[in-house]
Amino acid sequence: MMQIDILTLFPEMFNGVLNSSILKRASDIKAVQYDTINFRSYTENKHQKVDDYPYGGGAGMVLSPQPLFDAVEDLKTKSKSSSRVILMCPQGEPYTQQKAEELSQEDHLIMICGHYEGYDERIRSHLVTDEISIGDYVLTGGELGAMVVTDSVVRLLPGVLGNDHSAVQDSFSTGLLEHPHYTRPRDFRGLKVPEVILSGDHKKIDEWRQKESLRRTYERRPDLIENASLTEKEKQWLKEWKMDK
Amino acid sequence: MMQIDILTLFPEMFNGVLNSSILKRASDIKAVQYDTINFRSYTENKHQKVDDYPYGGGAGMVLSPQPLFDAVEDLKTKSKSSSRVILMCPQGEPYTQQKAEELSQEDHLIMICGHYEGYDERIRSHLVTDEISIGDYVLTGGELGAMVVTDSVVRLLPGVLGNDHSAVQDSFSTGLLEHPHYTRPRDFRGLKVPEVILSGDHKKIDEWRQKESLRRTYERRPDLIENASLTEKEKQWLKEWKMDK
Repeated sequence: MMQIDILTLFPEMFNGVLNSSILKRASDIKAVQYDTINFRSYTENKHQKVDDYPYGGGAGMVLSPQPLFDAVEDLKTKSKSSSRVILMCPQGEPYTQQKAEELSQEDHLIMICGHYEGYDERIRSHLVTDEISIGDYVLTGGELGAMVVTDSVVRLLPGVLGNDHSAVQDSFSTGLLEHPHYTRPRDFRGLKVPEVILSGDHKKIDEWRQKESLRRTYERRPDLIENASLTEKEKQWLKEWKMDK
Repeated sequence: MMQIDILTLFPEMFNGVLNSSILKRASDIKAVQYDTINFRSYTENKHQKVDDYPYGGGAGMVLSPQPLFDAVEDLKTKSKSSSRVILMCPQGEPYTQQKAEELSQEDHLIMICGHYEGYDERIRSHLVTDEISIGDYVLTGGELGAMVVTDSVVRLLPGVLGNDHSAVQDSFSTGLLEHPHYTRPRDFRGLKVPEVILSGDHKKIDEWRQKESLRRTYERRPDLIENASLTEKEKQWLKEWKMDK
């Protein structure tokens, strides 16, 4: 069973997310256990202060090393396996599905969520094993990042997704964006489902989907095409579209 | 006051996040109002089904057009201003701080969160104004994405952040990663704060910070350097590091 410990000043933020849908199911079937821990409880000063003014001046407060070092060390002692200690921060490595797969192999994840302030650099250099950023946008704290990492990792654990859903996830592994989907009705307010999808000709349908998946990626995310391994037919389609431009 | 409507099958997921920290404060000072709406309540079929099998076969279920079209149209009717209708999906445009700033200018955001299934393509092509992806990783649903967009947008609304924090956010606008921060104690278990930061020489401190910010970006995110506007001094540092390699 994977153990996920989340160090945060706002543990109540996690209740809704950890108790819904797949994340709840994963803990129900004991694929994972979550603990949210307020690291303020590890402070040694009487005012329970977790941050302090930055040396050298400047705006904002900086998270002090002591509470986080003590919290992480305590959690490590309680764990039988080695631990990945993950700092959620804008300076971290951009998060990817590959990283989610890597983390899903671990037994113990400790995630550290700061809140607006920076982290004392000694936390970064001597306490953590990984620094992760979920994207190039400014968030109030690391909590949403920790939820994103938790969700993406836990859904990869054995038994968490039914067969029905793992196929959906597989469609990502082509490296291309998904093709369009349609369901009933055939005609919704005059908007019709393409004929080919209704044809019952599965060879044609598969080819249409493959082509539309490639087309969507080409139009929206050409950066993904560079890293995808394409078939000869796909390369031919790309060539045609480029000539049409 | 900005109105944010979130269409989801799991409204309870949002309670912790919308009622904590800055997002709570923003609604307390009436900079924003949040509503989470279960779009299952808009279904016209007696079993309140929101999804159906995909035309053309394949695994997974597809979200039907009717409930989401009716929900969005109802919310638009209730709004005095024009609405941005945002679909959270892996096929969307990669989310950036620039997009957050753009959305923060709007009066009414409607966010649609699907859950594992795909969306019927007519939702994508005829109902929404924006498709957003928060990153290249697989999540169980659009809910975490909607929280990320909400947090990043709301903290930009006037009056939501105190002066103390807006400066922190400004440090992002250089296009580089932030420099290291240090706070007390000077010596934590033998790990010392760099002398320069303690020197009291603010010219030296500023230069050290500028250089470390650039160095960190150069080492971790060279892609960001390409789009940053650098000073002559910064270009010189880069040159030296490249020669050292």
